[in-house]
Amino acid sequence: MSKPAPKAVVLLSGGLDSATALAMAKKQGFQCFALSFDYGQRSLTELNAARRIVEQMGIAEHRVIRLHLEDFGGSALTDHTIDVPDHDTGGIPVTYVPARNTVFLSLALGWAEVLEADAIFIGVNAVDYSGYPDCRPEFIDAFEKMANLATKTGISGQGIKIHTPLMNMTKADIIREGQYLGVSYADTISCYQADDDGRACGVCDSCRLRAQGFKDAGVTDPTHYIKV
Amino acid sequence: MSKPAPKAVVLLSGGLDSATALAMAKKQGFQCFALSFDYGQRSLTELNAARRIVEQMGIAEHRVIRLHLEDFGGSALTDHTIDVPDHDTGGIPVTYVPARNTVFLSLALGWAEVLEADAIFIGVNAVDYSGYPDCRPEFIDAFEKMANLATKTGISGQGIKIHTPLMNMTKADIIREGQYLGVSYADTISCYQADDDGRACGVCDSCRLRAQGFKDAGVTDPTHYIKV
Repeated sequence: MSKPAPKAVVLLSGGLDSATALAMAKKQGFQCFALSFDYGQRSLTELNAARRIVEQMGIAEHRVIRLHLEDFGGSALTDHTIDVPDHDTGGIPVTYVPARNTVFLSLALGWAEVLEADAIFIGVNAVDYSGYPDCRPEFIDAFEKMANLATKTGISGQGIKIHTPLMNMTKADIIREGQYLGVSYADTISCYQADDDGRACGVCDSCRLRAQGFKDAGVTDPTHYIKV
Repeated sequence: MSKPAPKAVVLLSGGLDSATALAMAKKQGFQCFALSFDYGQRSLTELNAARRIVEQMGIAEHRVIRLHLEDFGGSALTDHTIDVPDHDTGGIPVTYVPARNTVFLSLALGWAEVLEADAIFIGVNAVDYSGYPDCRPEFIDAFEKMANLATKTGISGQGIKIHTPLMNMTKADIIREGQYLGVSYADTISCYQADDDGRACGVCDSCRLRAQGFKDAGVTDPTHYIKV
């Protein structure tokens, strides 16, 4: 008899990175449980993208948790009174959502504990990233240590591992890997201010990183843009 | 000119412990921002208790965040198909909510970052506690380390401190301290299955710890019980 596949909770935003991380988790043999958040983003288009990705990859379970981060304000992504910048502003950008990855990983940890999963996948990246503190390897290591003190599974010995398969990849590497694994990038949304039809602005930080990635990878950019 | 009071986000469940922690934070000179969660508990009575406590103590800001932890199941406190036990079951009890304090502290961290607060108060206790892994000092230390790697404030140097003023106090000590600070314990709810009128069952783990605490403190128990 073969052992059942190990379970992994995979954080899925609907963007290019998390879609690729999901494909990599599946490729590594994990039974994947996708987790997305509806947290008062400017656009719900990325949740629709997450649903398309899950369907395309044949992932059995996908939960979307409503989180009311807009109550706290403080970020251009959840506070509609702050503009998304159209150029590199240096330092930590206003699109940073306070403690976002901490909150997302914590909820992933709760679900992982219920599922008795031993892995959480998150598509953070320390190379072509936007300067968010909660995307760095030292943050992920500290979260994993904390998680294994917080939970029954950490105490009983099986433990939880936080996987960050994209951490040291360039955007171009990620795109090449995803293309090899059959990720449908036309279905993903990276834009901070995509419109209701899923078209990207082409000017925000995230759009610029993505476009450059396709260029560097030598892959045709399948993104639907509002302005080209 | 006097310096403005430092800000603290205080996790407030509406129970005896968190009400006392709030009173202690206030006494220490913090400007307090109370944070409660509506997370699919069996009873909303404790949120009403939290509102009464905030009013009684004259706390300026109180946010109640809706969290859909019941979607994950796995705990008698959020999954209505699991019974709350009326006796000590040994080990980690079924009333344990997966990753609860991790999730609560993460959201407190998000609000603290927006407020530029330098403290978070949580009323966890390692003495008269229910065997939850996320109430132990080693968990809190690991969370604090992680929080200071996750956030702008951690990076810029001010840093976030997690205060656990009750950690090493017995339930009787907590009750005596709270009485000294004027906490209205009749307004607090500790019961895992209080009824809609705020009356406690008297038999769950939390009720038994609380009743013993009043007895040990030599303080008249103001709790309203369903059965005496």
